[in-house]
Amino acid sequence: MSFDGEQYPGVMAPPQKAQGFRLNHTMLRVKDPEKSLAFYTGIFGMRVLRRLDFEEMGFSLYFLARLDDDEAIPEEVGERTVWTFQQRGLLELTHNWGTEDQDDFAYHDGNSEPQGFGHICFSVPDLEAAIAWFDSNEVSYVKRPEQGKMKDVAFIKDVDGYWIEIVQASKMEGAGR
Amino acid sequence: MSFDGEQYPGVMAPPQKAQGFRLNHTMLRVKDPEKSLAFYTGIFGMRVLRRLDFEEMGFSLYFLARLDDDEAIPEEVGERTVWTFQQRGLLELTHNWGTEDQDDFAYHDGNSEPQGFGHICFSVPDLEAAIAWFDSNEVSYVKRPEQGKMKDVAFIKDVDGYWIEIVQASKMEGAGR
Repeated sequence: MSFDGEQYPGVMAPPQKAQGFRLNHTMLRVKDPEKSLAFYTGIFGMRVLRRLDFEEMGFSLYFLARLDDDEAIPEEVGERTVWTFQQRGLLELTHNWGTEDQDDFAYHDGNSEPQGFGHICFSVPDLEAAIAWFDSNEVSYVKRPEQGKMKDVAFIKDVDGYWIEIVQASKMEGAGR
Repeated sequence: MSFDGEQYPGVMAPPQKAQGFRLNHTMLRVKDPEKSLAFYTGIFGMRVLRRLDFEEMGFSLYFLARLDDDEAIPEEVGERTVWTFQQRGLLELTHNWGTEDQDDFAYHDGNSEPQGFGHICFSVPDLEAAIAWFDSNEVSYVKRPEQGKMKDVAFIKDVDGYWIEIVQASKMEGAGR
């Protein structure tokens, strides 16, 4: 490979011992899985690869992927679980049973204090078409593309209020320069 | 494709309008990029695809990938920025300038109250070898594989205290059943 990554203070060469490591997923807690699944499958086209239930501890995990159409997902459940943990860039939603019935229950989005996690980001082929699609689904915005300093970048909210950045890759060529 | 995803209340068929959407990245704020870059490149073998600086707003973004060795990253910077936003499963680290000099500054990991974001997860080919590698780097643990109810799953902390789950896919076949 000709390009080894940009070099900044702290950056080290990839160690042998990290061979085969993959960034498998990001986990967000959700209040009501029915609403979250409708949002991430119905609007973003994700699929549920696996639900794992942990009855003794009272929670379920949903592993969602936004796959290219030609990818082959194993049918057999054990094989599919192993395959799920071999993928890159999944979303894991954790449902602690019963939160969906608590009127005053809400998760923290990480952008108000105390800050930490910021957002997930979807790249879309056509930003304008994606915004029209989100509008037809009455999605909430943190920032529409035309607002604020970063033009051509939108932030919407998922059903728990987590921020989702929306970008069109081909519009980002000059970003940060 | 024969397998369309597991079906649960809320799950919808992927809409045409979401074609080409990709889950590009997860963003975490970091206090000191030098330490975070040393951690994610030196221990996890990630590479910095792009740093984007926003001088007027006083922050920098670092886009990191854990790539397979045969992937070709464009050399030219504008082309590489576009390519970065076309990828799946990246990690974006946000550095608000100056936080690294504030002794009492810390980000919130999302696992103590108020809860929300939980963790990122790396899949590794050999859990035992990975644990030995983390130990040799004196990484902090939330939970070693042999602790707690979920055997064969470890949680470590990154330099800001964010949780990183470590799993070996082939050990997960019977998880949640």
